[in-house]
Amino acid sequence: MTAADSSNPAAARVATRLHVDEPLAAGGTVGLDRDRAHYLRSVLRLSSGDAVALFNARDGEWLARLEGLGKGWASVAVEAQRRPPVAEPDLWLVFAPIKRARIDFLAEKASELGCSLLQPVLTRFTMVERVNVERLAANAREAAEQCERLSVPAVREPLALERLLDGWGESDETRGRRLVMADEGGAHDRSLPPLGDAVAAAAEEAGGAGGSWALLIGPEGGFAPAERERLAALPGIVRGTLGPRLLRADTAAVAGLALLQARVGDWR
Amino acid sequence: MTAADSSNPAAARVATRLHVDEPLAAGGTVGLDRDRAHYLRSVLRLSSGDAVALFNARDGEWLARLEGLGKGWASVAVEAQRRPPVAEPDLWLVFAPIKRARIDFLAEKASELGCSLLQPVLTRFTMVERVNVERLAANAREAAEQCERLSVPAVREPLALERLLDGWGESDETRGRRLVMADEGGAHDRSLPPLGDAVAAAAEEAGGAGGSWALLIGPEGGFAPAERERLAALPGIVRGTLGPRLLRADTAAVAGLALLQARVGDWR
Repeated sequence: MTAADSSNPAAARVATRLHVDEPLAAGGTVGLDRDRAHYLRSVLRLSSGDAVALFNARDGEWLARLEGLGKGWASVAVEAQRRPPVAEPDLWLVFAPIKRARIDFLAEKASELGCSLLQPVLTRFTMVERVNVERLAANAREAAEQCERLSVPAVREPLALERLLDGWGESDETRGRRLVMADEGGAHDRSLPPLGDAVAAAAEEAGGAGGSWALLIGPEGGFAPAERERLAALPGIVRGTLGPRLLRADTAAVAGLALLQARVGDWR
Repeated sequence: MTAADSSNPAAARVATRLHVDEPLAAGGTVGLDRDRAHYLRSVLRLSSGDAVALFNARDGEWLARLEGLGKGWASVAVEAQRRPPVAEPDLWLVFAPIKRARIDFLAEKASELGCSLLQPVLTRFTMVERVNVERLAANAREAAEQCERLSVPAVREPLALERLLDGWGESDETRGRRLVMADEGGAHDRSLPPLGDAVAAAAEEAGGAGGSWALLIGPEGGFAPAERERLAALPGIVRGTLGPRLLRADTAAVAGLALLQARVGDWR
């Protein structure tokens, strides 16, 4: 059996998984960009005939074979489907940007934890206002390639929190989407329910798991009083605590996403 | 009201929180080591009379005032208790060591998430065998100082997984301790229950939340078949999945700790 035995494409060993935007179908050919050609040739040391997997959310994952590989270019022949497309959780992470190493980490973790979209928001106390959206998207894509998901999270340009809330519930993509706020005030406010329980209760009210969700994580300095008031008054907002310790923004994001996936996502 | 107004020590503003091993009581004096003296003097730019908080698990958190501060030394006068000691979760993280940036991150997150002890274990597929225990302990301590917990996680020297399992349940500290295995095989094994549900069920069997727990996270290459068999046969082991994506070891640790704190720890 060769590495790219197409009699059982799902079991064939591949050197790597690559996300591509192009349509994937048997007999098709996909060209890879400069960076990825370099990665295949110089890092993985592949050559013509070697098997890789290509995937996207629309077409699933496909067994493919390197046709040609040169300096700065590669072409790949698509052979057979390894995995059909699947429905994935519709889970946004809305977060105030943080410093470089931590935001890179956050993009990686959010991708592994199945986020569909990363939306940076600027709040009153946000310390970091510039976001390298391209770098975040590259981190998210790389994590998606490693963790075996079929989609890659979208990464948007930063938006003022106020603007996001102005239209919340009115656009197609926010209508019915539950906003979940991991409330760092909870470290001192014992009246808030545990976040996992709050999410489970909101899901039950809405008739079960699934649906569309967004986890909101504030900046390291917390939300301003006016922002907290506005959020608390938002129809359908789900607020909960992540316990008595003060969590960093990146820790809160990972913990909150884990609780969401465990309660209403695809971990069950 | 001065910064160190001792009429309400809990509300007094302090420049920083420092964990110290020494007993803390009103009227006592604590000497700080070279690194911390440098931090107070040259990073925070404090001087005699400035207020800090000192804490440990035994005595709680205390308002204290810098008495003297020189090159490489500092002495601090303990004034009044800000927070009494509290019971904290008895939650171990048992993990196969990973590469430097990720293990530093892991120690920080485990501390924020309330771990009581970090135990590196060497498994068949562990790639990183040397662990800088001192550096991990420093990261864990710094995170404890920032997240407002009163204890600092202990960090142990690495131990072979087999040795840990040999004595499991027999020593004072492992008797009755539930070992929870975030089973990365779960990405492909649909028969495993979701980890949070498995933990909740185990707690219910044992008569409710609380008790002593340990989360076990395998190496990036997963457990060897013999290790998996031995673990599956361990009396009382709790196995569960963290969903259909393949998580990195550090992601699995943070997600698993969040689920444990949410289900049986102090997030409720």
